[in-house]
This record gives sequence, structure tokens and C-alpha cells, in this order.
Amino acid sequence: MSGDTVAEDTRSRLLATALKLFSEHGVGGTSLQMIADELGVTKAAVYYHFKTKDEITEAVAAPALQELLARMDEAERQRTRGAQIDHALSGFVDLIVQYRSLIALFNSDPGIIRAIDRSLNGVENFAARMRKLLVGPDPDLATALTANVLLAGLALAGGSPEQAHLDDETLRVHLFDIGRRMLGRPKRRGSARAEGSASMGAQGA
Amino acid sequence: MSGDTVAEDTRSRLLATALKLFSEHGVGGTSLQMIADELGVTKAAVYYHFKTKDEITEAVAAPALQELLARMDEAERQRTRGAQIDHALSGFVDLIVQYRSLIALFNSDPGIIRAIDRSLNGVENFAARMRKLLVGPDPDLATALTANVLLAGLALAGGSPEQAHLDDETLRVHLFDIGRRMLGRPKRRGSARAEGSASMGAQGA
Repeated sequence: MSGDTVAEDTRSRLLATALKLFSEHGVGGTSLQMIADELGVTKAAVYYHFKTKDEITEAVAAPALQELLARMDEAERQRTRGAQIDHALSGFVDLIVQYRSLIALFNSDPGIIRAIDRSLNGVENFAARMRKLLVGPDPDLATALTANVLLAGLALAGGSPEQAHLDDETLRVHLFDIGRRMLGRPKRRGSARAEGSASMGAQGA
Repeated sequence: MSGDTVAEDTRSRLLATALKLFSEHGVGGTSLQMIADELGVTKAAVYYHFKTKDEITEAVAAPALQELLARMDEAERQRTRGAQIDHALSGFVDLIVQYRSLIALFNSDPGIIRAIDRSLNGVENFAARMRKLLVGPDPDLATALTANVLLAGLALAGGSPEQAHLDDETLRVHLFDIGRRMLGRPKRRGSARAEGSASMGAQGA
């Protein structure tokens, strides 16, 4: 039991270290040896937990992806379309904010995208399910494209180093508000979160 | 003169071939030898034009980036803010549509991102200039984030293989319309393009 706990702790530290090194060097630029060195353990200790870098990459991404799947399940159980949309959108935004450094990695490294493809049977299916929650099963082209632009934009801009100075709650409020506006959700029915944000209405006129 | 013309033609075909192979295998997965084989020339013939793969990558991206810079220059010369915004946005959208396969590559391969960084003194500067055109030099946080979500989302979603079945004009009209809506541009002042697109107003309510 004590041995298991030590192993579990090493595994957690290993994944945190891997994420840090992936962020700095990319997945391609990080070796098992670098992870071992950074952790101060032998390469054999790393091998005890993961046989390949691909396995580490999948394990690094897994918690965020599992959590997002759980949030989509929850969204699907909501009774009204409005509640489904808000649940799915806030789940997506929460995860972006919570896993910012991981998202930045998703956005810049094909290695981790391939790992997600393997662990989720395709990013396409994943995005399609989220889009269905946001705009329904049979959107017209304008609506489908809007959802695609929104999902891609929230993830890419939210995970960008440019936003690293923002605290989690500020980033969350603003991304959620942008999403609600793009999806045409009414202001008055907004959650407490959405109300904190400035309107863009007169912008650029 | 005739020799020059042949060399120029080979250079063009070389870049087109490189882009095709980059799209299929990524920049990292494409070798000079693969490019030579695909073109049906010797590796020496490739070396005559480009000494490294990095040089090829920069040359592949250069026309799109130069064109976008020219469109931003043009936008800055417009007299009203509204015209500046529409010019910058339509320039951005035009380039996304025209260079879809290249954009898809930007979005998935760190190799080409590094090449752009070199040839433009940083993607950050590039994005900052576009954002300034769209929302002015000193936007509030909500506005700056909206512009970031928009630019990232248009490029990522527009270049996605999911949109490969759309003809250029259809994709252009819809992306431009999404951009105008997100930037709060008034409908009645929209270009002919924007008017062709369905409204999202009641979506998801």
C-alpha cells in the first residue's frame, strides 16, 4: 500500500514534469531521458510507469479530456436547449482556463493532437459532439461555421501565452461571454458570470 | 533568358510540390529527397534553388504573408474606421480562403510557424497589427479577447479539412459575415458579400 502510494506520487510528478517540458520544448523535443533528469530519477524509473513517450502524452492529456466528456454528458442531461448550450459552453471554457498550458500545447504540437486522436477515437468526433450541443444536430451552414469558429477561437486564443497574465476568473468570464454572444444567447438569461463582462455592441462602428 | 524561365518554372513547381507534401506528411515528415522524387528531378536540382528545408518552408509561406501585409497596408489607408475594419477583415478572410491548404498547415505544424516567425519578425507583431486594424490601438479586455478569438477561430476553422467541400465564395461570404457580427459592424453598411449570409440572431435561444 505504501509502495503503491509512492508509485502513484511518482506517476503524478512524472506527468506534471512531462507537461512542463512539453510546453518548453514541444512533445517532439522532449525525451524520456530529459523527463528523468528533470525529476531526478533514473530512466528505468520512468519506464516503470510508461513504456513510450506516446503513453506519457496520452496520460498528460487524459484528465482534461475525461473532464470535458463528463461535462458534455452533464450538458446532454439538461432539460432545455438553453441550459444545454450554457452547460456545454461553460464546461468548454472552464476546461480551457483550467488547462491553459495544456491547451497551448494542443495548439502548437502535432504530437499531442495525435495522442488525443488515439485516446478519443478522433478529435473530429469530439468536436462534432460539442458542436451538436451548442447548435443542435442539423445546423445551417452559417450556424455550423459560427460554432466552428467559436470553438477553435476560444481554445486557441484562450490558451495563448498572450492571455497568461489574466487570472482564471477574468479569462473565464470573458470567454463565456464571447461564446454566449456568438451563439445568440439572450443577455437577460445569462449566468452571473456573463453579466460581469462589458458589451461589444458599439465596437468598431 | 530561356534558362532563367526554366529555373523559375522549376522553382514554382518545387514550391507547389513542397506544399502538397507538407500537407500530407507535415514539414517534419517531408525531406528534400521526397520533394525531388515527387517532382521527378534530382536532389541536386532541388539544392540549386534551396539549400535547406527551412528555406523552402519560408518560400512556401511567403506569398500569402506578403499579400496579407499588402492588404493591411491598404486597410490602413482607408479614411473611416468602418472601412479600415472591413478592409482588414475581408483581406484576412480572402487570404484564409485562397490559401486554405497552407493555413491548415500553419495550424498543425510548428515547423511552418517557426518559418513565419523568422520571415515576419514574429507572428505576434503580425497578429497585433491586424488586431489594431480591427479594434483600434487601445481596446478594452473584452474587445481585445473578442478580436483574438475571431482571428484565431477564422484561421483555424476556415483552414480545417471539415470545410474543404465548400467553394471559395461560399466560405468567404460566411467567414466575413461571422467576423462582421463579432466586431459589431452594422448590417446595413455591410458589403454585398455580407448580405448573402443567413442571420444567426435567433440561434440557440
